[in-house]
Amino acid sequence: MKAYKDMDRDELLTLKAALEEEYKTLEAKHLNLNMARGKPGFSQLALSMPMLDVVNSDSDMRTMLGNDTRNYGDLDGIGESRYLMADMMSVEKDNVIVCGNSSLNIMYDTVARSMTHGVNGSVPWCRLDKVKFLCPVPGYDRHFKITEFFGIEMVNIPLYDDGPDMDMVEKYVNNDASVKGIWCVPKYSNPTGISYSDEVVRRFARLKPAAEDFRIYWDNAYSIHHLYEDIQDEILNILDECEKAGNPDMVYIFASTSKISFPGSGIAAIAASPKNIEFIMSQMSIQTIGHDKINQLRHARFFKDIDGLKNHMKLHAELLRPKFAAVLDTLERELSGLGIGNWIKPRGGYFISFNSLPGCAKDIVAKCKALGVILTGAGATFPYGKDPEDSNIRIAPTFPTPEEMEQAAEVFVLCVKLASVEKLLAGM
Amino acid sequence: MKAYKDMDRDELLTLKAALEEEYKTLEAKHLNLNMARGKPGFSQLALSMPMLDVVNSDSDMRTMLGNDTRNYGDLDGIGESRYLMADMMSVEKDNVIVCGNSSLNIMYDTVARSMTHGVNGSVPWCRLDKVKFLCPVPGYDRHFKITEFFGIEMVNIPLYDDGPDMDMVEKYVNNDASVKGIWCVPKYSNPTGISYSDEVVRRFARLKPAAEDFRIYWDNAYSIHHLYEDIQDEILNILDECEKAGNPDMVYIFASTSKISFPGSGIAAIAASPKNIEFIMSQMSIQTIGHDKINQLRHARFFKDIDGLKNHMKLHAELLRPKFAAVLDTLERELSGLGIGNWIKPRGGYFISFNSLPGCAKDIVAKCKALGVILTGAGATFPYGKDPEDSNIRIAPTFPTPEEMEQAAEVFVLCVKLASVEKLLAGM
Repeated sequence: MKAYKDMDRDELLTLKAALEEEYKTLEAKHLNLNMARGKPGFSQLALSMPMLDVVNSDSDMRTMLGNDTRNYGDLDGIGESRYLMADMMSVEKDNVIVCGNSSLNIMYDTVARSMTHGVNGSVPWCRLDKVKFLCPVPGYDRHFKITEFFGIEMVNIPLYDDGPDMDMVEKYVNNDASVKGIWCVPKYSNPTGISYSDEVVRRFARLKPAAEDFRIYWDNAYSIHHLYEDIQDEILNILDECEKAGNPDMVYIFASTSKISFPGSGIAAIAASPKNIEFIMSQMSIQTIGHDKINQLRHARFFKDIDGLKNHMKLHAELLRPKFAAVLDTLERELSGLGIGNWIKPRGGYFISFNSLPGCAKDIVAKCKALGVILTGAGATFPYGKDPEDSNIRIAPTFPTPEEMEQAAEVFVLCVKLASVEKLLAGM
Repeated sequence: MKAYKDMDRDELLTLKAALEEEYKTLEAKHLNLNMARGKPGFSQLALSMPMLDVVNSDSDMRTMLGNDTRNYGDLDGIGESRYLMADMMSVEKDNVIVCGNSSLNIMYDTVARSMTHGVNGSVPWCRLDKVKFLCPVPGYDRHFKITEFFGIEMVNIPLYDDGPDMDMVEKYVNNDASVKGIWCVPKYSNPTGISYSDEVVRRFARLKPAAEDFRIYWDNAYSIHHLYEDIQDEILNILDECEKAGNPDMVYIFASTSKISFPGSGIAAIAASPKNIEFIMSQMSIQTIGHDKINQLRHARFFKDIDGLKNHMKLHAELLRPKFAAVLDTLERELSGLGIGNWIKPRGGYFISFNSLPGCAKDIVAKCKALGVILTGAGATFPYGKDPEDSNIRIAPTFPTPEEMEQAAEVFVLCVKLASVEKLLAGM
């Protein structure tokens, strides 16, 4: 295959005409496919249906400690759910609060609390002139929406194959007291799929923040969400590393079972140092009398322990591999060598991140939409929805069936080609 | 019975000696009873156990509109749960957002949002020098804790048998722009059990707030929580009345099934005008991807409709009547005519409110505790935990069995007598 940039105007025009023919053919198919959000597919949801039977009208509703899950109490979560989530998060039970159904909600509450009450006694952020968060990019749009909502200034930090640009992170965190946080998805990152190297994790732990209330927002959303059995990423335990480095309070870890059991009906948790946990509990005791403990019991009894979780994730992986393969094989087959885009083959998580020629992402997403394939909006993976290069596109291959995914991938590569040709021609 | 205040010193001393004997007898019983919180009893929880079977691994998990409750979506709640809660709250489905498991959490979020983002475009409260809430007293301690947590100044408003002192409410709301809210439990009030008269509701609706962002926080926690079939309180529909009075946006209504299905595993909702709902949704869309829709489905399918809810509440009432009777009969039999306390016989809700002689409440609660009977802390029913009269005690008769409740009531009346005698002697 000849790289597009090496083609002359006539070659590009000929190619464009051919691609436009293909476009018409696909247009006639009237597809209706959605790759916008990281939603589990129907077959994945079916995996967890037996969970709905483990707590029923004949069940003993008491926890391991004898507390009635049907009544008020256990604000920090029932013991068995704390053990389960602690194991998943590689921390101790006492470092974990098991909350409601959404880790995003815990993150939101964590930022909201910092706005009105500060962090462990610091000045409430709403009283400060400026508060900044570092945002490794591309990243998770929902993180950026939270910080934007609270008027927190977001600073783009390049995300490499082994994690964020740590030189830049250190420069900001260690010198700028208005930097209060950084959003991280350290494993199978959303959307690039990369995992942080041990060196990156250690550099995080060794930060010397200018702000006492700086925190790492460690959204370990995909900690056991491997795609393969033989090649799996592992990352260092950030809570341990922070403690070793003399920064025990510097990190909040978030996780949930949203993509293990049911999105929206899972359980979510926050893990942190005893001092952080105490501060969070002091606020949570005002916010609610308690979370849904019957659902915590349901999860604990269904998964039993970390092995139960891991076995369940193998079943998810079997269903996801063909979907990821459908996209990756098509990208490889159709775009390899053309010099009009690059991507990383992820070993876990929920996304494939594609980088087009600069200035093409919005056009590609629009072209796909016109052919009935909905992608995450271009720019969504950047703060304020603004990708400076207009290049990154997040592909979420989990919701469609493998067959649909193949069709969608065909549409995608065609739109990448067409948008690239048009871009190159326009620049001539 | 001779009123205590009419007794001379010798009579009181003789009485005191006799009461102290009784005290010793009860002390020897080593009781361990808890009337501190409004927790449903074991037999009440059993009523809802069949709910755990209605959604199981064989269930069709789709909503009435065909949406999969197991996946992301339906941020404002699934249709059937919105209809159910709307009927319970006497509003239309489109006025309701069904959230997670806790109406208290919705109230907290509502205040928190106002702090950081204001109300429908008003100045965020965290930027104001002073924000005040009116607090009808005695009231619900958890409400007061929220406003205290956010540094909101609380103003005590006397609560009469037909509702708050509306002259005072009007004076504050219509003249003081720093007054941004009022906490109301309009039906079977926590703790006095009274319900607001039609005239009180109409006066609420006709308020002319000095602050555009003033809201009535209408916590209709006990809307269908009647104790009797023949005598039931009904209150006017505040949303309708506000609309009629040209104040459609002035009220937020809160409710949950915490004391219908399971505390902690129920569903909660907020109802308001379209403009308010839109503003709340704009924040909620940042906070979470959605609430637990499987639990919403479970509730909708179990209760089916408002009649299902009402029939279920009759079963609760049957279990609660003997417990309330145990307290009320003992109070009547033992304290009537002594002039050392008064109480209201509630027709619904979860509490009995007792007013002792001034300066005796803390002592009574401490004496009960020494005999193994835990009551809500004296003062808890007032902002900042400070009852100016040290007189109000909240009795929560729902959790113990009727037999235990009778024992606890015996302890209570003895402690009231003893504390009153000691108080009167000390004042001689």
